[in-house]
Amino acid sequence: MTNLAPTPTPAPVIWLTGLSGAGKTTIADALTTHLRAKGILVEWLDGDEIRTHLSKGLGFSRDDRNTNVLRIGYVASLLARNGVTVVVSAISPYRESRDAARKMVAHFLEVHVSAPLTVCAERDVKGLYKRAFAGEIEGFTGVSDPYESPLNAELVIETAAVTVTTAIHCIEQTLRDHFSTHEASAASTATKGAQ
Amino acid sequence: MTNLAPTPTPAPVIWLTGLSGAGKTTIADALTTHLRAKGILVEWLDGDEIRTHLSKGLGFSRDDRNTNVLRIGYVASLLARNGVTVVVSAISPYRESRDAARKMVAHFLEVHVSAPLTVCAERDVKGLYKRAFAGEIEGFTGVSDPYESPLNAELVIETAAVTVTTAIHCIEQTLRDHFSTHEASAASTATKGAQ
Repeated sequence: MTNLAPTPTPAPVIWLTGLSGAGKTTIADALTTHLRAKGILVEWLDGDEIRTHLSKGLGFSRDDRNTNVLRIGYVASLLARNGVTVVVSAISPYRESRDAARKMVAHFLEVHVSAPLTVCAERDVKGLYKRAFAGEIEGFTGVSDPYESPLNAELVIETAAVTVTTAIHCIEQTLRDHFSTHEASAASTATKGAQ
Repeated sequence: MTNLAPTPTPAPVIWLTGLSGAGKTTIADALTTHLRAKGILVEWLDGDEIRTHLSKGLGFSRDDRNTNVLRIGYVASLLARNGVTVVVSAISPYRESRDAARKMVAHFLEVHVSAPLTVCAERDVKGLYKRAFAGEIEGFTGVSDPYESPLNAELVIETAAVTVTTAIHCIEQTLRDHFSTHEASAASTATKGAQ
């Protein structure tokens, strides 16, 4: 019997890392909507949501944070190898686990969603910085816990300087540069699947 | 702008539950190969593998086993809603978490891979029953831990009585009965994706 198994072109994993309040969720939300509107299969994995579903019981120590990031990476890898583009929004403060996640997938786009701590604290979307500076939250990234900035991110977005629309354009352009064959291959895979 | 977002037809989750040694892995392996050969996108989630990647630190208490099953269900739901057929092989001994997993996905096919305990123990593929009966493993499903047989499984396969080939034919036939529109819709989605 001829093996007709589809070998879907691995889709990219767009990994947004950065401080709380830097703009990861805003960009992830807009990016997901934008890519879906273009007909691309996308799944958005949010760090907090993944923590609820897959990491209950884990805390915020270096080990536990790394474990959570590895779990996101594992789920992202399952989706991406089946042709689903993945957008991840997660503080993911440590280089070691971001690098490990990178190794799990074929196409990893590390996007540093960056803003000065003072800007993040001013935005304080969830009211967490106020509590962190008051000492009510231990191990808060950027305040009482480290954030290791990417050394080799594919893209750095300074959210205090650019609009969300610009951020998305930059991500798309970077995707094109790095994975220029992706969309063509995805279409080809879809055609195969229909046979 | 016209929203061209693909809305992939949710793929089925084929959930193989049963005792250790009942034949879940054998059937899952053959089923995955068989479906892929037909051009269907399939991901196989094995209980032990998921435990390694997503549930390190969990033990084998009722709560921990249920948590592991819910995590498999969550990952299966992400894949299935993106059109990837999922084959799960996991003891998943408790009805409550299998039922919870069922509720997470659009098309859930619960397959009880069944064999008498004596047969499983005779097969003893991993040498675990010998150790369990010797009291070296605590909380071993079927020996010193409960297995709650499905009350409303879509399919029961008695592996002491039928071949793997028959098992796969039965699963396929049941899939056709329950999700007769699936393959046609999947092809339609794939065609859309290629536009």
